[in-house]
Amino acid sequence: MQMDLNSDLGESLGAWRMGDDAAMLDIVSSANVACGFHAGDAAGILRTLRAAAGRGVAVGAHVAYPDLAGFGRRNMDVESADLQADVIYQIGALQALARVAGTTVRYVKPHGALYNTIAHDRRQADDVIAAVRAADPSLVLVALAGSPLIGWARDAGLRVVAEAFADRAYTPAGALVSRREQGAVLHDPALIAERMLRLVSEGTLEAIDGSTVRIGADSICVHGDSPGAVAIARGVRAHLEKSGVAIAPFAGAQ
Amino acid sequence: MQMDLNSDLGESLGAWRMGDDAAMLDIVSSANVACGFHAGDAAGILRTLRAAAGRGVAVGAHVAYPDLAGFGRRNMDVESADLQADVIYQIGALQALARVAGTTVRYVKPHGALYNTIAHDRRQADDVIAAVRAADPSLVLVALAGSPLIGWARDAGLRVVAEAFADRAYTPAGALVSRREQGAVLHDPALIAERMLRLVSEGTLEAIDGSTVRIGADSICVHGDSPGAVAIARGVRAHLEKSGVAIAPFAGAQ
Amino acid sequence: MQMDLNSDLGESLGAWRMGDDAAMLDIVSSANVACGFHAGDAAGILRTLRAAAGRGVAVGAHVAYPDLAGFGRRNMDVESADLQADVIYQIGALQALARVAGTTVRYVKPHGALYNTIAHDRRQADDVIAAVRAADPSLVLVALAGSPLIGWARDAGLRVVAEAFADRAYTPAGALVSRREQGAVLHDPALIAERMLRLVSEGTLEAIDGSTVRIGADSICVHGDSPGAVAIARGVRAHLEKSGVAIAPFAGAQ
Amino acid sequence: MQMDLNSDLGESLGAWRMGDDAAMLDIVSSANVACGFHAGDAAGILRTLRAAAGRGVAVGAHVAYPDLAGFGRRNMDVESADLQADVIYQIGALQALARVAGTTVRYVKPHGALYNTIAHDRRQADDVIAAVRAADPSLVLVALAGSPLIGWARDAGLRVVAEAFADRAYTPAGALVSRREQGAVLHDPALIAERMLRLVSEGTLEAIDGSTVRIGADSICVHGDSPGAVAIARGVRAHLEKSGVAIAPFAGAQ
Repeated sequence: MQMDLNSDLGESLGAWRMGDDAAMLDIVSSANVACGFHAGDAAGILRTLRAAAGRGVAVGAHVAYPDLAGFGRRNMDVESADLQADVIYQIGALQALARVAGTTVRYVKPHGALYNTIAHDRRQADDVIAAVRAADPSLVLVALAGSPLIGWARDAGLRVVAEAFADRAYTPAGALVSRREQGAVLHDPALIAERMLRLVSEGTLEAIDGSTVRIGADSICVHGDSPGAVAIARGVRAHLEKSGVAIAPFAGAQ
Repeated sequence: MQMDLNSDLGESLGAWRMGDDAAMLDIVSSANVACGFHAGDAAGILRTLRAAAGRGVAVGAHVAYPDLAGFGRRNMDVESADLQADVIYQIGALQALARVAGTTVRYVKPHGALYNTIAHDRRQADDVIAAVRAADPSLVLVALAGSPLIGWARDAGLRVVAEAFADRAYTPAGALVSRREQGAVLHDPALIAERMLRLVSEGTLEAIDGSTVRIGADSICVHGDSPGAVAIARGVRAHLEKSGVAIAPFAGAQ
Repeated sequence: MQMDLNSDLGESLGAWRMGDDAAMLDIVSSANVACGFHAGDAAGILRTLRAAAGRGVAVGAHVAYPDLAGFGRRNMDVESADLQADVIYQIGALQALARVAGTTVRYVKPHGALYNTIAHDRRQADDVIAAVRAADPSLVLVALAGSPLIGWARDAGLRVVAEAFADRAYTPAGALVSRREQGAVLHDPALIAERMLRLVSEGTLEAIDGSTVRIGADSICVHGDSPGAVAIARGVRAHLEKSGVAIAPFAGAQ
Repeated sequence: MQMDLNSDLGESLGAWRMGDDAAMLDIVSSANVACGFHAGDAAGILRTLRAAAGRGVAVGAHVAYPDLAGFGRRNMDVESADLQADVIYQIGALQALARVAGTTVRYVKPHGALYNTIAHDRRQADDVIAAVRAADPSLVLVALAGSPLIGWARDAGLRVVAEAFADRAYTPAGALVSRREQGAVLHDPALIAERMLRLVSEGTLEAIDGSTVRIGADSICVHGDSPGAVAIARGVRAHLEKSGVAIAPFAGAQ
């Protein structure tokens, strides 16, 4: 058995630090690297890419809305021509930096508000799909497990990787519990690690109401934006490995 | 005989228009396309690239300091790690958009203050040279005719194209007359066209003091930021063609 | 009889020009001046403010979402703390520049997507109302005639000016016809001028279905972003003046 | 005896944290608050202003070049019209937020590269002086002790506060030792605290060569961008207070 662990990296900006990229690169098998629109300056992105290349961590483009002040977390009604070109621009910028760092962009994982919007919004989803295909049809799209985006992207000819979130609660229908609701975010490292092992071995999770829900995930997203988050991520990896699960980039991204 | 004509294009930004790209693409053989740092949004850049591709105009990356408010015209003391990565980032972004537009980035021409600085400043020149080589060593660097940058870049293994400016006066030593001095910018279309024909056919220009100065130029820069500038550019092309000079991208960029 | 004419000004950005501020300042009685978030750099804003002050044109803060690339026309889901502080920041920046120009900010007119959103969205409307009141409770809010925003702002203690659009068609219910529908934007200068005279003298317009609709407007918005738009604005002013309507800032803004 | 301690605050940006404003506001008597050009978003600036107001800490405008990516630390050759208007814009934005927070902007302290440049560059110094006077002639300018800026600003009619740096070495001539030289930055909290006490009580410091240099300082700048820096600042305050020096805003800023 094997599983991919991914995390958002390269999100520092100039004098501002974000997360602990060095620590996370020892934990994850895939790095979603910021492309400068929600976070990341070129020199910092390049440093993160070099560190990822040095550790054999796969690299993806963490494309976003153009919104540094909002860290790409604010919904924006971007027109199709702009959204498509913005995504291509970001992919290209990261591809060049990755080449210089001795690695290659394997996948695209939209960030924040763009990620959540395209999981369900057909127009923006189609724009991102078209942009990825235009930029490089061999790129894999990382999408929310259970979302309609997965089908839309596959129908358009893209390879897709479904993603689960280690520290999030799920509804009985397999959707993420909204962050506005109690219990949406999990904090217990041992519980999270155990849930992820069950996800990998059985393809199921305990939903927030206690029922069992099936989640088809090819990658697990872990966070590194606080010391507690890093510890959770480290715990997930250790628990999976101890149980015989190899941590490795998803096949499509290798 | 043949000569390359280049111009700065793709410099609109969102709702703001700049220049007349359509008119200029009928005049020039090479388009220096903005990369988003001093000008250009991704969708507008893509439109310009498609128009250039449709007319067989060669495309170069018009990389710049990160300064939209100053249009890249303000000197900035950018550290080496940042400058190198910023240049790679811009080249990559343009490469991806160019691929989507059905064309290829052939060369790099730094813009504005960066162009002027690296013509003489060794540290920043070396950073740009290193960035171009790292991004793609087959890219040509367009540099100010007569500047030390040309030798530095060639010594580092880059192919270089030397550039003259159609509407600028030259010193007897072959340098541009500073814009702060009277007579630095020429406005007479017929005079400019005649000077450019002499440059192409004899390799010389009349300097501001009336002496003859030798200028080794592989490309001539014309401007399109006003109706008068477009008319001058059109006049240069017509006069050269009438005199048997073919307008075509410089060999290194084909 | 008198009426206020307002227009969006100060929307150039660095090297990019937008509209013809000089021409418009001879036509309008109120200038909605960009504050740097959707358009406008500080030096250009100051020039526009000085020109407005020199002509006795009243000045308002044209506050917007932080979105230069989208010119503030894209809906953005900005949180309350950010939206309130962003509006205060913009008002303050314009107030200081206005003082230096020898004038005073009299009113606030939100721009683009923010204007349209707060006309109907209670949460963002309350944020803007709170920000204006916090910044300076004597500031007038310019709001879409007939929109619920007018009542919300008055209930909160703000003075409000209701605004009609010279070149837009209205529904029988007094709402703007969506730009996506045919006939939404009017182009005939004589027709527009005649409609605005009827609006001033009778308080009514002919709706898109031919019926008569009552519109309570204290100010008329005219545009200046094209030579045609300037001509329409000039025609409205000339027709109103010829018919005995004085063009002057709305009372609350004087 | 009394002395002012100042520090740079409000430098977070959206999701990015910078420094520990809460800790520093218990140590300093004056807060140089970012204005959005090198750091700071409006909501975060407002939070810092409210915290400063709640503790009776005086507030100054930490105006900067427009350079988020470079944190305002890169020299930029900004034209006079832009520099003046940019400074006025920033002061005004902070004034409005300060009013809402229940406090007032008392002084202006330029940041980073702008601070260093105007200490010696007459053209940019005159621009900043003109901007401060135009925005509000009662504002105090905080300037590098011993720099020509102090005389230029006083000659122009501004009140000026001379500033020393707690953690920096000085030349025998009273200038800062360049950061590029060994020993330029001091790290020993006890030594720093003792030096500052001597500065306050005797007006002198031991220069890097062991000689005694006279420094006329009305304010001492301490840093808060690392836990070590906060500890040094706390140590300076404690040592001064223990020795009978009251920590209070400089008179001109009260």
